[in-house]
Amino acid sequence: MTATTAPRPSFPHRHLLGIEGLSPLDITALLDMADEAVEVSRQVEKKRTTLRGRTQINLFFEPSTRTQSSFELAGKRLGADVMNMSVSSSSVKKGETLIDTAATLNAMRPDIIVVRHHAAGAVHLLARKVDCAVINAGDGAHEHPTQALLDALTIRRNKGRIEGLIVAICGDVLHSRVARSNIILLQALGARVRCVGPSTLLPSGLERFGVEVFTDMRKGLADADIVMMLRLQRERMNGSFVPSVKEYFRFFGLDREKLAYAKPDALVMHPGPMNRGVEIDSEVADGAQSLIREQVEMGVAVRMATLEALARNLPNG
Amino acid sequence: MTATTAPRPSFPHRHLLGIEGLSPLDITALLDMADEAVEVSRQVEKKRTTLRGRTQINLFFEPSTRTQSSFELAGKRLGADVMNMSVSSSSVKKGETLIDTAATLNAMRPDIIVVRHHAAGAVHLLARKVDCAVINAGDGAHEHPTQALLDALTIRRNKGRIEGLIVAICGDVLHSRVARSNIILLQALGARVRCVGPSTLLPSGLERFGVEVFTDMRKGLADADIVMMLRLQRERMNGSFVPSVKEYFRFFGLDREKLAYAKPDALVMHPGPMNRGVEIDSEVADGAQSLIREQVEMGVAVRMATLEALARNLPNG
Amino acid sequence: MTATTAPRPSFPHRHLLGIEGLSPLDITALLDMADEAVEVSRQVEKKRTTLRGRTQINLFFEPSTRTQSSFELAGKRLGADVMNMSVSSSSVKKGETLIDTAATLNAMRPDIIVVRHHAAGAVHLLARKVDCAVINAGDGAHEHPTQALLDALTIRRNKGRIEGLIVAICGDVLHSRVARSNIILLQALGARVRCVGPSTLLPSGLERFGVEVFTDMRKGLADADIVMMLRLQRERMNGSFVPSVKEYFRFFGLDREKLAYAKPDALVMHPGPMNRGVEIDSEVADGAQSLIREQVEMGVAVRMATLEALARNLPNG
Repeated sequence: MTATTAPRPSFPHRHLLGIEGLSPLDITALLDMADEAVEVSRQVEKKRTTLRGRTQINLFFEPSTRTQSSFELAGKRLGADVMNMSVSSSSVKKGETLIDTAATLNAMRPDIIVVRHHAAGAVHLLARKVDCAVINAGDGAHEHPTQALLDALTIRRNKGRIEGLIVAICGDVLHSRVARSNIILLQALGARVRCVGPSTLLPSGLERFGVEVFTDMRKGLADADIVMMLRLQRERMNGSFVPSVKEYFRFFGLDREKLAYAKPDALVMHPGPMNRGVEIDSEVADGAQSLIREQVEMGVAVRMATLEALARNLPNG
Repeated sequence: MTATTAPRPSFPHRHLLGIEGLSPLDITALLDMADEAVEVSRQVEKKRTTLRGRTQINLFFEPSTRTQSSFELAGKRLGADVMNMSVSSSSVKKGETLIDTAATLNAMRPDIIVVRHHAAGAVHLLARKVDCAVINAGDGAHEHPTQALLDALTIRRNKGRIEGLIVAICGDVLHSRVARSNIILLQALGARVRCVGPSTLLPSGLERFGVEVFTDMRKGLADADIVMMLRLQRERMNGSFVPSVKEYFRFFGLDREKLAYAKPDALVMHPGPMNRGVEIDSEVADGAQSLIREQVEMGVAVRMATLEALARNLPNG
Repeated sequence: MTATTAPRPSFPHRHLLGIEGLSPLDITALLDMADEAVEVSRQVEKKRTTLRGRTQINLFFEPSTRTQSSFELAGKRLGADVMNMSVSSSSVKKGETLIDTAATLNAMRPDIIVVRHHAAGAVHLLARKVDCAVINAGDGAHEHPTQALLDALTIRRNKGRIEGLIVAICGDVLHSRVARSNIILLQALGARVRCVGPSTLLPSGLERFGVEVFTDMRKGLADADIVMMLRLQRERMNGSFVPSVKEYFRFFGLDREKLAYAKPDALVMHPGPMNRGVEIDSEVADGAQSLIREQVEMGVAVRMATLEALARNLPNG
């Protein structure tokens, strides 16, 4: 150990593939950096040069205007050269494998690849084949770590803390990578996590992870500090149980009446895009307790923080 | 009123949603700025830093290579971070409303959103939901203000003035936002505007706005200084009268014979893309009297001027 | 001839439309520049300002993630403003001609247009209609000059030379612009070129160009220094002979057994995307003799060199 040894980075990971495996310190480091990044986007000149000359590739095997835009703006505001690749209309058609795509991109010497893929685990596979940093922007029903980080940032800025809060994650937990990443993160930071929804949309075994499970919204929301609604992902329910929208809203849609069961200062969140009138009522979505717009702003900040943290950890970074 | 009060901006509007509502002074201010912007694109280094660190989002609900490219180059040449969003393959599919899209983008803290939408009025609705400046890049059959501005710039640079000119707008006026914006602008600057076309493609009541109406091309072109042809928008004629291309060209297509009825130094314009052999003959489109290519160049300049004018009016701009 | 006369440029051409027409000196000049460009992408800050304020348009009438990305990164790393235009979903639908598209883009005053088109000759046609530099990124079955240049760069860096090498180009030569450009380039630099494949996939008359033709892989590979595999382009074989994949692999797929007929230090290349198990076996594609990943890296470098060379030759460049 010599005097020139680099200090341990505040976020000691090469990739951000999931919340699983991150320590509370890792998470807090990213949230602290994100708090600073929020201010960048609030300036007239929203620009840093931290990633000048760095190449960021947004590789989306599933379209997502919202997430891709957030990463694109985050990269551009840090001065990176950002390249979007939508792979539906591309080499995949010509039969190229994911591994060949990874190897090809890697040879173009990017610094960071942001990947969304419809298959759980695809992003981990890709990360093993490249020399650069990889950020998981959603892989199947597995993880969506920057969503969980932006949710945590939003909560922390509004409640001052995460520890000890009661967070009710409600709705289609079964198909939700957002829920999965949030459960892991919120528990790591000491929140009490509940999952609320119809039993057909709740994965089995949640209790083993210390999650309280409710199939009755009013009971599940009782005394909650945070009510986190999920998108009903009917497009993922091929063949299986697809609830009627009207019935679903009646029992599990968040409206003012159900929200009244939570704490009086409870805050409402949704990862978007919302199905208004399905999982959430417009009165609540647009109401005073809603953080839904702020979540989007925090999304850009969390992605800036992640890009910057990973770029620092690159060789010669 | 204190000494630190900012001077009244030369273009005192937060958005550019249409030509309607602009004063002749407003229009002239943008045209004067555009005259300067023309020179930027003629340099080897086509680059200003006016919009450095500013975020411009091009939000296109209808594809338009030509208009989107023009706005993209305009923003990039001013140093902005430009992000394109084509919304056909996106959240709209997931059932997100226009207002949610607006609120989401707004939370990402853009400075300017350029919007094209298939529905008249959609851009106004969006503008009411955001904090940034909005530019209408075409909304349904309503307005396309930067097209009218670039047409005016092209005319003014070639004729030295707009006042007193006879401008014949010819063809499918009914489906044309280009025609609508041009009629308002040209009249505001003192031109005499005619509309020429088959009665089925002319909106009723044009005369009330001081427009002279002709259903005979030769009479409509008599003594015209400017012959502005419109695209026959057969894709918008669902169910209604769709003319035969051959008949249409015979009566309303601009060829050398019909053009001879206009002034000898009359100039020919078309917003593009042209249907050659439908509304315009190639001999005229590519002839010495055609300004069609120059219109495209002026398009980039007018968009640079608009971006710059609106950015100046932003808080702390 | 005055003292202010500019020196003859090292690459004395306005466009790069094909390898045909380039001298060995021209080719060598680009390869030398590309050798330098390789180092740029290997830096932490992969950025030059050579093309600052220059506008590069990537105009792709055929989708190609790989080639478009390579040109996009090349331009961005040189500091250009890069604009992508995919023309499947655009004005072509509205019936605009290639010439109108060219004239429209030209009026926006780009410095360089990179074009891919499905029709041989389309890029030449476009180049005659614009004032800027044009790079052919693949036109039908005609030419793909930057692919041939990157192949040559890869060979030269690994073998130290091109002259005197035996290069076997194998597979679907008939549909391959890659093969065509490579044959011309490799012969210009003094390599001995062979084409190897089923007679139905070999164009007639190759011998007239000094190419040795083989329909037996083992004979064709005997003593080869370079084995260049081609993609089997079944999507271009409309109506004509489409080989069975299994039979094709048996006779013409490169596996370890067939590769053993080449020189012991023979190197394997493929332009990508690969059909693994069709024209090439994974063991060979990923083996120690494979240069396939390096080709991708050299692609960015060759495109940087080409962009820089052509930009220098522009008026006031």
